[in-house]
Amino acid sequence: MKKRVAVVGATGIAGQQFLVALDHHPWFEVSLLAASERSAGKSYGEAIRDAKTGARRWWCQGEPPLSVLSLPVYDASSLNLSGIDLVFSAVESDVAREIEPLYAKTTPVISTASAFRSEPDVPVFIPGVNLDHARLLEVQKRKRGWQGFLATQPNCTAIGLAITLKPLLEQFGLTTVLMTSMQGVSGAGRSPGVIALDILDNIIPFIVGEEEKVEKETQKILGVFSEGSIIPAAFSVSATCTRAAVLEGHTEAVFAALARPCSVEDVRAAMIAFGRDFLSLGLPSAPKHMIIVHDDPFRPQPRLDRDAEDGMATSVGRLRKDHALENGVKYVLVSHNTKMGAAKGAVLMAEYLLQAGYI
Amino acid sequence: MKKRVAVVGATGIAGQQFLVALDHHPWFEVSLLAASERSAGKSYGEAIRDAKTGARRWWCQGEPPLSVLSLPVYDASSLNLSGIDLVFSAVESDVAREIEPLYAKTTPVISTASAFRSEPDVPVFIPGVNLDHARLLEVQKRKRGWQGFLATQPNCTAIGLAITLKPLLEQFGLTTVLMTSMQGVSGAGRSPGVIALDILDNIIPFIVGEEEKVEKETQKILGVFSEGSIIPAAFSVSATCTRAAVLEGHTEAVFAALARPCSVEDVRAAMIAFGRDFLSLGLPSAPKHMIIVHDDPFRPQPRLDRDAEDGMATSVGRLRKDHALENGVKYVLVSHNTKMGAAKGAVLMAEYLLQAGYI
Amino acid sequence: MKKRVAVVGATGIAGQQFLVALDHHPWFEVSLLAASERSAGKSYGEAIRDAKTGARRWWCQGEPPLSVLSLPVYDASSLNLSGIDLVFSAVESDVAREIEPLYAKTTPVISTASAFRSEPDVPVFIPGVNLDHARLLEVQKRKRGWQGFLATQPNCTAIGLAITLKPLLEQFGLTTVLMTSMQGVSGAGRSPGVIALDILDNIIPFIVGEEEKVEKETQKILGVFSEGSIIPAAFSVSATCTRAAVLEGHTEAVFAALARPCSVEDVRAAMIAFGRDFLSLGLPSAPKHMIIVHDDPFRPQPRLDRDAEDGMATSVGRLRKDHALENGVKYVLVSHNTKMGAAKGAVLMAEYLLQAGYI
Amino acid sequence: MKKRVAVVGATGIAGQQFLVALDHHPWFEVSLLAASERSAGKSYGEAIRDAKTGARRWWCQGEPPLSVLSLPVYDASSLNLSGIDLVFSAVESDVAREIEPLYAKTTPVISTASAFRSEPDVPVFIPGVNLDHARLLEVQKRKRGWQGFLATQPNCTAIGLAITLKPLLEQFGLTTVLMTSMQGVSGAGRSPGVIALDILDNIIPFIVGEEEKVEKETQKILGVFSEGSIIPAAFSVSATCTRAAVLEGHTEAVFAALARPCSVEDVRAAMIAFGRDFLSLGLPSAPKHMIIVHDDPFRPQPRLDRDAEDGMATSVGRLRKDHALENGVKYVLVSHNTKMGAAKGAVLMAEYLLQAGYI
Repeated sequence: MKKRVAVVGATGIAGQQFLVALDHHPWFEVSLLAASERSAGKSYGEAIRDAKTGARRWWCQGEPPLSVLSLPVYDASSLNLSGIDLVFSAVESDVAREIEPLYAKTTPVISTASAFRSEPDVPVFIPGVNLDHARLLEVQKRKRGWQGFLATQPNCTAIGLAITLKPLLEQFGLTTVLMTSMQGVSGAGRSPGVIALDILDNIIPFIVGEEEKVEKETQKILGVFSEGSIIPAAFSVSATCTRAAVLEGHTEAVFAALARPCSVEDVRAAMIAFGRDFLSLGLPSAPKHMIIVHDDPFRPQPRLDRDAEDGMATSVGRLRKDHALENGVKYVLVSHNTKMGAAKGAVLMAEYLLQAGYI
Repeated sequence: MKKRVAVVGATGIAGQQFLVALDHHPWFEVSLLAASERSAGKSYGEAIRDAKTGARRWWCQGEPPLSVLSLPVYDASSLNLSGIDLVFSAVESDVAREIEPLYAKTTPVISTASAFRSEPDVPVFIPGVNLDHARLLEVQKRKRGWQGFLATQPNCTAIGLAITLKPLLEQFGLTTVLMTSMQGVSGAGRSPGVIALDILDNIIPFIVGEEEKVEKETQKILGVFSEGSIIPAAFSVSATCTRAAVLEGHTEAVFAALARPCSVEDVRAAMIAFGRDFLSLGLPSAPKHMIIVHDDPFRPQPRLDRDAEDGMATSVGRLRKDHALENGVKYVLVSHNTKMGAAKGAVLMAEYLLQAGYI
Repeated sequence: MKKRVAVVGATGIAGQQFLVALDHHPWFEVSLLAASERSAGKSYGEAIRDAKTGARRWWCQGEPPLSVLSLPVYDASSLNLSGIDLVFSAVESDVAREIEPLYAKTTPVISTASAFRSEPDVPVFIPGVNLDHARLLEVQKRKRGWQGFLATQPNCTAIGLAITLKPLLEQFGLTTVLMTSMQGVSGAGRSPGVIALDILDNIIPFIVGEEEKVEKETQKILGVFSEGSIIPAAFSVSATCTRAAVLEGHTEAVFAALARPCSVEDVRAAMIAFGRDFLSLGLPSAPKHMIIVHDDPFRPQPRLDRDAEDGMATSVGRLRKDHALENGVKYVLVSHNTKMGAAKGAVLMAEYLLQAGYI
Repeated sequence: MKKRVAVVGATGIAGQQFLVALDHHPWFEVSLLAASERSAGKSYGEAIRDAKTGARRWWCQGEPPLSVLSLPVYDASSLNLSGIDLVFSAVESDVAREIEPLYAKTTPVISTASAFRSEPDVPVFIPGVNLDHARLLEVQKRKRGWQGFLATQPNCTAIGLAITLKPLLEQFGLTTVLMTSMQGVSGAGRSPGVIALDILDNIIPFIVGEEEKVEKETQKILGVFSEGSIIPAAFSVSATCTRAAVLEGHTEAVFAALARPCSVEDVRAAMIAFGRDFLSLGLPSAPKHMIIVHDDPFRPQPRLDRDAEDGMATSVGRLRKDHALENGVKYVLVSHNTKMGAAKGAVLMAEYLLQAGYI
């Protein structure tokens, strides 16, 4: 028997990515769709059709899954979750702040919104990196008196960074991390998203709130769960986040000072080996490798590498010594911001939490 | 009486930028054009016309200066420089290695090629930053027995970095600099340059040889001229250089550790004040400001800011504390790689060297 | 004494283009700014600053004219026009429909909005093409009892088409015109404009309402003023309008069947000669040529040619026989959609109407 | 037993697309690779590795098929074809002119080069459109005394046009076709292909030789095989071919005058029904539909639709009456220029010719 899941924010681009990630899923079945009041009462097929022009507002590659086109869309602000085993929430942060606690009273919620990520009892998960933080969910349920829970997917730029830093932290220790991102426009969504007039032939050197999220979430994700709370990792993180004329895929240039000297070859081996135990669980949405390391110096490139292992592997290249930092290494990574970095990463998290007995 | 100048490599994109930078110049007159054997014997207008399609191979904005269209083009490998006061060389590095020393025997040469930049007796100039290094030209002439000399323009990515670091170095000292660049495609020229198939919807994380140039040239430019040679600056520099889908303008995200604590406001003031003495010389191609500092966090952007003060000012923004480095600051800069970063910067250098009596 | 003009919709991108086109204008002085209620009561400088991020919402090249930064912004829906000689309206069509008739009761209005273009007593002008249609303004004033009037700027895609067809119509007659446009994203404005996610690595084959405007306005502009009304031109026009990843400049591939046989050289000569009488008026915003004809088959290109004669000349190339249509010719044109095609074209129209005594 | 095939030009981008199209093919096995002298003697894996930078010169999505990496590469100019059943030739036209006749003496050759397409005894095939032209191969073999033959794939822009015109020609007749293309940069290959400096923020209005190919090949493909030769179709075709900032996929805006009046609905039905007999053959590389017709007016778009049915279906949209032409219809099509338009289309042709007994 598949678990019955709700997708909230189902008409937006992030919600549509959930519908794609859940299409023909072996463990989950999309049973309930919710969106804003404007869409409520329509079938999903109607809700994503523009009445005036006849255009279909579907923004993922390929066609919408047939199975959802006839499902009714409900109002997210007054949702009846009886019979639902799990909610995937893909709403904007201000909406999330209001509705996610209501859902979590009765039902497990996995969210891609940033609203609650900085709360001490809300874990920020990356499958394969910090799943021991799941134990924070027990603290959360107890503290808040919820039958469900709220687990969050990190910021899409923090994900690739945290995945690639984890093996370095484990094996060599970290003292300082400096990162410059060149982020794809899909990360900004579509309301209004990034305007072509702003990004063609251009780089935009600022993304509101992004650097703070990357810095804090990376430390939280790589922190230690101890006595009911997360102690953030002690290394310092500094980010400059920019937007580039790239559709999908975040590229990050990382400079890292390690706690102990090591060779580039050691770092390379640590990255390649990373995540074997987690991957051996064989979860349906997991990639074959957490990290792919390229020797070709022209890789990774977002267009060529974002879809590696269906967008679930992080690609690393240009791994080399950094002589400006103590025990320094530097590298470039590419990570798919709307697959591992959003909906499909959240589905992978759900798979783990289900297998581990949290759902 | 204007000085008579030769432009070598005149049919290439870098050479054309010299023709634009020298059009109606108050001090210099383009008197001699040289290019490869293929163009020799034609008028400039013929040399840049594709015989098969009728297309004109002119790649700068606007039309070619009328005054050069009828000039004959000579073979760069066997050039007669009698009557020429100064040579601007815009050839590729392998060609530069062969022909520039021949020219310099008799005539001052200012080159945008990288061939000789690392030689101990060849200065790498940025107008307004290290013009005291001009004294190395005397060492060079003596050592090589040249009547002319060879002065070089830095790598186009090093220029914006060195200009913005100079006031920091002077006022606060520097210990460590980490920089990630997002470079425009014009930096790669056109033979073959960057292919659209490679850069549309993409970032390329590697530019052959670029990082080494940026690191070494920045230290050389900011070094001290002492007892006949340059002692490179002692701070460490680490660069990751990438290519973005931007036509012109290099964007650089800089993290710098200063030697002494200081406020962001101090750094801002140092940048704004930088270069006043040099600018007061009133050289024809000089900008009004060496550095423009933006408070709008969405600036600088290459498309909006590359042409600031006709491409001769470096634009800085997002200036803020960096908490990962000791006494850290971080900022983003935009610099025009084919104006201040190439031909027009070289013309500005020539203006200084003329005024200072070297030409 | 300069005429005192109001710019309505002054905070939007189209309004900002008016401020640029009117900066230091010899005949007009910007004396009144209006925008939506949200901006009313602020200075212009405040109105275009984002309170949250500090970003400046100014979307034209360069800085806003200093003279307008301190002007107060008034509410466009309740504007006092006493002392104002002329209103430039740059609002959206639904707003235009409400406010422009109110303004025109007392004051001449020149609008870039499409709201009234199809009304029989409202002329759709292109300076140099159909200024005899100005006589329709007298009909309009009489019929509507207005002291002012309403004159409209055509759709930005119709402008280049009508300009290049006019000499063909005059000299050879026209029977059929088929046109495919590849339009720049600036034509869609910024609210929300074209999303980067939609146009990067893409062509969008539809622009709502555009083809009908191009077809009808071209016939109206090239029609004959007779007995108090415009008789649309009799040739048929068919358009397919697409959006391309181009910032500014509309490119149009035109196939035209002429009424009489003629050589390509005749067509070329007719285009080059077109507009001499109008241009001899020496209006301040007029280009030197209405049409520039390129022989280089790779021209015109929007990036290279949109700014020809400050965006006021239409560039034509690839002029050649078309063997599929009777007496067919085909060509490609580039026209600047936000200069001749919008604000600056409207200012040129105002210059003519002032000189001709309508204002 | 699979047929043994050679791929000539295997290191270029077009050749690599053949390797992808033939990977795990049920009927063909890549047994021989050839390229220029420079690559001869190396393994394929070595031949596509840049010795200086370590970069891999592989330009298709994903990794090269493992099975070819260790195959030796031979010199295309002196190739031994014994044991080879079929040659796929992906070389440039000037090379094709020399080597393809040599191959065809002994072996069937299917080529994507344009060198021989206009020769009267060389068929230009589109699978599903004009396979009866295969009978020209018998004429060719007899006339030239070849044991093999030479069959050619059309120009990549002609393919989508001819596919969509065929049902119109069959059911309603055609008198005039006017087409404007907006072509992807992959059509220009990589040597040097389209330079980013030329196409970013731009449209290039000319592609050397393209319009003549489109016009003539469309008439040849849609012509009638009669008494040993092809009588070109009698309708007139006029094309304007432009290049856009699109990676893959050619977009074409078509205006067509039909011989008989018909409704848009009739045209739509004819397109949807087209090719059923051919598709019922079930060839391995065939799409499920020759033409997909979209009702959403914003489709087809090259980025969204080029990969429809693995790049083998042609997508049509914006189908509507054209009132400027007699019995006019107009529409926009998208076709994948390097799948149906090149290697994979050639493989589909091979499948048909094998099944029909020509190979």
